[in-house]
Amino acid sequence: MNVTADQPYGPDSLATDVPHPSQPLPLTQALQLPRIVIEDTQPVIEGGQLAAKAIIEQPVTVTSKVFADGHDKMAVRICYRAADEQQWHKAPMRDLGNDSWIGEFTPTSVSRYVFRLEAWIDQFASYRYELEKKYAAGVDIGLELEEGRLHLVHASERSQHELRGQIDSVLQRLGQNTEHEPQVALLLSSETATIMSHADNHAFLSRSFEYPLDVERERAQFASWYELFPRSITDDKSRHGTFNDVHSRLPMIRDMGFDVLYFPPIHPIGRAHRKGPNNSLTAGPDDPGSPYAIGSAEGGHDAIHPQLGTREDFRNLVAAAAEHGLEIALDFAIQCSQDHLWLKEHPGWFSWRPDGTIRYAENPPKKYQDIVNVDFYAPDAIPSLWLELRDVVLGWVEEGVKIFRVDNPHTKPLPFWQWMIADVRAQHPDVMFLAEAFTKPAMMARLGKVGYSQSYTYFTWRNTKAELAEYFTQLNQTPWRDCYRPNFFVNTPDINPHFLHDSGRAGFLIRAALATMGSGLWGMYSGFELCESAPVPGKEEYLDSEKYEIRPRDFTQPGNIIAEIAQLNRIRRQNPALQTHLGLRIYNAWNDNILYFGKRTADGSNFVLVAVSLDPHNVQEASFELPLWEMGLPDDAATLGEDLMTGHSWTWYGKTQFMRIDPSYQPFGIWRIRTTNP
Amino acid sequence: MNVTADQPYGPDSLATDVPHPSQPLPLTQALQLPRIVIEDTQPVIEGGQLAAKAIIEQPVTVTSKVFADGHDKMAVRICYRAADEQQWHKAPMRDLGNDSWIGEFTPTSVSRYVFRLEAWIDQFASYRYELEKKYAAGVDIGLELEEGRLHLVHASERSQHELRGQIDSVLQRLGQNTEHEPQVALLLSSETATIMSHADNHAFLSRSFEYPLDVERERAQFASWYELFPRSITDDKSRHGTFNDVHSRLPMIRDMGFDVLYFPPIHPIGRAHRKGPNNSLTAGPDDPGSPYAIGSAEGGHDAIHPQLGTREDFRNLVAAAAEHGLEIALDFAIQCSQDHLWLKEHPGWFSWRPDGTIRYAENPPKKYQDIVNVDFYAPDAIPSLWLELRDVVLGWVEEGVKIFRVDNPHTKPLPFWQWMIADVRAQHPDVMFLAEAFTKPAMMARLGKVGYSQSYTYFTWRNTKAELAEYFTQLNQTPWRDCYRPNFFVNTPDINPHFLHDSGRAGFLIRAALATMGSGLWGMYSGFELCESAPVPGKEEYLDSEKYEIRPRDFTQPGNIIAEIAQLNRIRRQNPALQTHLGLRIYNAWNDNILYFGKRTADGSNFVLVAVSLDPHNVQEASFELPLWEMGLPDDAATLGEDLMTGHSWTWYGKTQFMRIDPSYQPFGIWRIRTTNP
Repeated sequence: MNVTADQPYGPDSLATDVPHPSQPLPLTQALQLPRIVIEDTQPVIEGGQLAAKAIIEQPVTVTSKVFADGHDKMAVRICYRAADEQQWHKAPMRDLGNDSWIGEFTPTSVSRYVFRLEAWIDQFASYRYELEKKYAAGVDIGLELEEGRLHLVHASERSQHELRGQIDSVLQRLGQNTEHEPQVALLLSSETATIMSHADNHAFLSRSFEYPLDVERERAQFASWYELFPRSITDDKSRHGTFNDVHSRLPMIRDMGFDVLYFPPIHPIGRAHRKGPNNSLTAGPDDPGSPYAIGSAEGGHDAIHPQLGTREDFRNLVAAAAEHGLEIALDFAIQCSQDHLWLKEHPGWFSWRPDGTIRYAENPPKKYQDIVNVDFYAPDAIPSLWLELRDVVLGWVEEGVKIFRVDNPHTKPLPFWQWMIADVRAQHPDVMFLAEAFTKPAMMARLGKVGYSQSYTYFTWRNTKAELAEYFTQLNQTPWRDCYRPNFFVNTPDINPHFLHDSGRAGFLIRAALATMGSGLWGMYSGFELCESAPVPGKEEYLDSEKYEIRPRDFTQPGNIIAEIAQLNRIRRQNPALQTHLGLRIYNAWNDNILYFGKRTADGSNFVLVAVSLDPHNVQEASFELPLWEMGLPDDAATLGEDLMTGHSWTWYGKTQFMRIDPSYQPFGIWRIRTTNP
Repeated sequence: MNVTADQPYGPDSLATDVPHPSQPLPLTQALQLPRIVIEDTQPVIEGGQLAAKAIIEQPVTVTSKVFADGHDKMAVRICYRAADEQQWHKAPMRDLGNDSWIGEFTPTSVSRYVFRLEAWIDQFASYRYELEKKYAAGVDIGLELEEGRLHLVHASERSQHELRGQIDSVLQRLGQNTEHEPQVALLLSSETATIMSHADNHAFLSRSFEYPLDVERERAQFASWYELFPRSITDDKSRHGTFNDVHSRLPMIRDMGFDVLYFPPIHPIGRAHRKGPNNSLTAGPDDPGSPYAIGSAEGGHDAIHPQLGTREDFRNLVAAAAEHGLEIALDFAIQCSQDHLWLKEHPGWFSWRPDGTIRYAENPPKKYQDIVNVDFYAPDAIPSLWLELRDVVLGWVEEGVKIFRVDNPHTKPLPFWQWMIADVRAQHPDVMFLAEAFTKPAMMARLGKVGYSQSYTYFTWRNTKAELAEYFTQLNQTPWRDCYRPNFFVNTPDINPHFLHDSGRAGFLIRAALATMGSGLWGMYSGFELCESAPVPGKEEYLDSEKYEIRPRDFTQPGNIIAEIAQLNRIRRQNPALQTHLGLRIYNAWNDNILYFGKRTADGSNFVLVAVSLDPHNVQEASFELPLWEMGLPDDAATLGEDLMTGHSWTWYGKTQFMRIDPSYQPFGIWRIRTTNP
C-alpha cells in the first residue's frame, strides 16, 4: 500500500501541465494562469476530494473570495449539475464586499451533484461604472461615449441572430442622438446592461475546480428515530417477541411522532461464548444472547433470527410500518460470532493466531470472545469480503430497507465506507447510513466526509450550558456544518447517561427538549419515554441490559413522558426551522442554568426560541433577550409570542424579557416569535 | 483565457487515475486509497498550489491530523528536500493526542523546498503496547510471546546485512529463555524497538502531497528599513542631491541600527504633465518632478536620473553602503511618464483611446496625466513586456541590488508576480520583494502567497489597544503567519499618519516602539526621526511633500528621537524573540490605553515583555500580569527583570505587578524576563 492521502479530484485536462512544486513556473504556463483568483470556496470538503452535504429542494449557499488585480468590475456565477446531466445550470453570485461573493442554487434530485465557480471581468460594467462617475463629476465625456459605442460594435460583431439585432438597435438609437444626456441614459440603462451581459465575452474567464455535493432526501436531515428490540415486544419475558408482535407497537410509536423505527441486529445469534444477563460470561440455556454476536448455523448477516419470524414476516412488518409513516432502519454490524459460517467458508477473512485460534477483541483483562472481527486487508479478503459486505447491504435494500445504522464504523477502514456507500447510493440514491462512532473528533468528521448521512454525537455527554452552547455552535460552523449531520440520541442500549440516573422525570424532559430542538435528527431507545434509568452501579450502562435479555415493558405506566414527546415531535413537523441542526444561535439569558437559543429559517419566516433549564430539581429564573436585531426590529419593538407546547399567545414589548422555569411543571419553554406586521 | 484557478500541484503519477467527482469510486481504486488519513497539514498554502514561507536555519514546525480506523499505533514522519536535492531528508513527528501530530525540520539553504508527510501503521509498536498491557494485567501471554517471535522472524526475513544480524541476535536471546519475564523484557526493550523500527515494513504507508516552501535569507524576516530621497541629501534646496552626497548619511543611518536603505525610483523623470510642489498640476522649470513619473528621453526603468549621478556613482554607493552594513533597496514602479521611450518603441504595451491618446489613471474629477500604466494582457505585450520587466529587475540585480520595494503590486496581474518572482529567485535566491499594497485583505495575503517576501500592512492605521491587539494576533495565525511577513512602516512619503499630527515627540516614540517590537520588519521614511508631521490640512499627506520637491533636513535638530531609535534597533539585534512578528502574545494589563505583549522564542530562551502606552499626553498606570504560566512557573514565583532601554535589573515577586508610564519621559517599557535559576 503506497498511495497519496490527499490527492484531490482534478479537472480532466490540466493536471499534467503543472510542474512539480519544486520547480518555478515557466512563462508559457504563467501566461495561462487565471488572472482572477477564486479562493476559499465553500461548501468544499478536503479541497474537493470528498463531497459536501445537501438536501433536495433546499438551497445550497455557496461563498467564495474572488478578486483580481486592479479595479475592474467582476461577474461571478455558480455552474452546477447532477451527475447524470450533461448541461450546467447557472446561478449568479453577488458581491458582499471585501472580495466575498455569495450565491445559491437548489438541487432537484437525490443524486451526486457537482458545482464550480466561474468568474470573469465584466468589461461593459466597468465601463458603465466609469461613465457614470465621470458624467456625475461633470468632466467632458465625448471620448467615453465613443468608447461605449465601440463596446456595442464589438459586442454586435461577436453576436448572432436576435441578440445581434438587439445590440444593433441600441447602436441605432445611440446614433440618433447628438446630445450627451440621452446617450448616457441609453448606455447606463438596465436594458442595455442586460443585452450586453448576454453578449459578454467573459474576459479573463477563470474557473474553480469542480466540487462534489451529495444531495440526499429530506430524512437525511430531519428524522426522529425510535429504537426497539423486537424480541422484547412480548408480555412475557419467557416468550420471545416477534416481528408480528411489533405491529401492535406501530400506532403508538407513530403517535409519538417518530418516523424511523430502528432495530438492533435481527440476524441469527451465535451460541459460542454467548453472554448471559448483565454481560456475564456464561449464558444459561434459555438466555437469548446479544444480537451483536451475529451468525450461527442458521445463517449470517443476510439471514433472519428464526425466533423473530420469517422473511415474509419481516416484509409484512416493513410494509405495515410504511403504512404508519415509519421507515425501518436496520443495524449493520460487521462482526461475527464464532459460529458465523464465514469463519469456515472464508477463514482468510479473519485474523488467526499462531496456535490456530481466532483473534478476538480484548481490553486486558477483559476478553470479548463472543465477537470476532474481519480483517479488511487480509490477502484473501480483497475484494471478496468487500463485495460480500456490500451485497449484504444490497440484499436488505431489496427487502425495502433504506436506512442503516452502522455499528462502530471507526474500527473499519475508511476506504471501505467511501467505496461501499457511494456504490450502494449510485444504485439506490435514497439509501442512508448513520455512523455509530464514539471516538475522536477527526474521525467523527471524516465518517461524514466519506459518505455517512448522519452521525451519532457527543450530545449525550454535553450537560452544562457552556458545553451545550459550544457544541451546538460548533456543529453550525465549518467544517462540521458541511460534512456532519448530528443525530442526537438521548440514550442507547449502551448509554444510560449519568445525568438521568437521579434527574427524575424532569431530567428526561430536559434531554428530550434539547435533542428535539437542537437538531433535525434525534433518537430515543425504548424505555426513555418511561423514564427508565436504573444503572449498573457507577456506570453509564443499563442494569439488566436488553442487549442480553428480553425486557417486556408496560408503555402505559404512570409518570411517562409520551405526551410531551408527541408534542415536541409535532412542533418539529410544524416548524421548518426545527428540521435541521443548522440556523441555530445561542442568545443571552442571564442564568447559567438556562440554555437559551433560537432556530431560524434562512428566509426568516419561521423563528423559534427555546429555553431549557438544565436543573431538573429547582425553579430557575432569568432575564433574557429577544433577538429583535435579527428581525430588523428596534429594541423597543413589540412582537408576537406563541407557546408552542400550549398554544397560548401574547405580545412581547421590547427586547429584555423575564422567564421562570419550574421543572415540576415543564423544564423548558418553546416559543415562536413573529413580527406584529401581518 | 479559460483556465482553472485552483488547480493544485499534484504528485506525478496519480492525477489521471482519479475519476471525475461526479462518479463513484470503482472498487479497484478504493482498494488503493490510503487507509491512513493525513488531513489539515500546515504550513500549506492553497492546498499546495503556492509556497509557504520559511527562513534558512530556522526550524519549520509541521502539524497535521493523522488517523486511521482501529486502535493501531502509528508512525508519522516529515520528508523534505531542497529543489536541487534528489534524496529526501526525514524528521519524525510525534503524537500530541487527539490525532494531532507535530514535527519540525530545519532548511539549510536559501531555495525552494518541498516536504510531504508519510504515515504508516507501526505493527511492532502496536504489538508491544498490547503485550505490555496484557502482561501488566496478569493474563496468560504464551501466545503473545510466540507472536512477538514471529514479528522478529518476519522482520529478519525482509532485512539484510547488519540489520538482519541484529534481529537474529534478539531472536537468539529470546530462544535462550523459557521464563516469560526476560522474554517480555527483551521484547519491550528500547534496543529491540530501535532495531525493529529500522526493519519496519511501513504497513499501509500513506503519503501526503508534496508541499512547496520558499526558504529565504534571514533579512526576509528581520530587517530595519530606512527610506530617503537621494536628491534631498543636500544642504541647499536649489542644489540637487546626488548618490555621492548619500555617502555622508551612511554612518548616521547605520548608527541608528538600520540595515536596508531604500530609495524611491532613481530613474529619469518625465517632463510631460510634470507635477509641481504639493502635487500641483503645473510645474515650474526648476521643479524636479515626482520620481514615480518614470522615463524620459534620457532613459527608462533601467537608467539612472542624470542629476543623481552616473552608473559608476551608483555602484560606488552600493559598495559603500555594504561597508556600513547597509543593503540598498530600489523601488520597482511599473508605470511610465508620457515621455517614456516605451510609448514610442512599444505602443502595443499600452492602452490607447479612440482618439489616439493614451489612457491614463483617473479618479473623476482627478486626472493623473503624469503617469500611464502598461497593459499586461495587451496582445503585443505577451510575452515581450513580461520579459522586459523581468530583465529590468535582473539588470539591477547585476548592479548588486537584491531588495525591491514594488509600487502598487495589487494593480498588476498576480500571474506576472508569481512567474517573475520565482524566475528571478531561481537564478538569484537571495533576491527579495516588498509589496507596497494597501488594499483588501484577500489581495494583501495573496501577494505574499505568490512570492512576495515582505508586505506593507495596515499597521499605520491601527491605533487603539483593541485594534493593535487584534492585528498583531491575526498576523500570528493561519493563513497570515504562513504567507505574509509584515513590514511595519511608521510613515511613508504617502502616509503622514493622523495620530502623529498632534501627538508630539511621545507619539513618534509610541509608534517606533510598536513597530520595532511588533514585527521583525519595520521601516521609517526620513523625517520621522525628527518628528516631522506637518500635514496637508485634514489629510494624511505631508505638506510640501518630498515627492515633488527637494527637502534638505538638519538631522541634528533638537527634539529628535535618533537615540531612542538606535536603542530600539540595538535591542532587536540582541534579542532573537524580536527578530520576527511571530511568537507574539497579548497579555493582561488593566488599562485600555496600555498595550502589553510578549515575544518569546520557540525554545523559551529569550522572552521580552513590551508595554506601550497609546496615550502620548497623559501618565498611564496599570496592574499587569507576568506570563509565569508560559515559563512553567507558579503564580508566586520570583523572576528576574531587566529594562532593555536602561539596563537596570530587578527581581519581580509573583504574577501581578504594577506599571506607571509617563510619556514625557518614555511612553513604553521593554523588559526581558528570566527565571531566577541559572
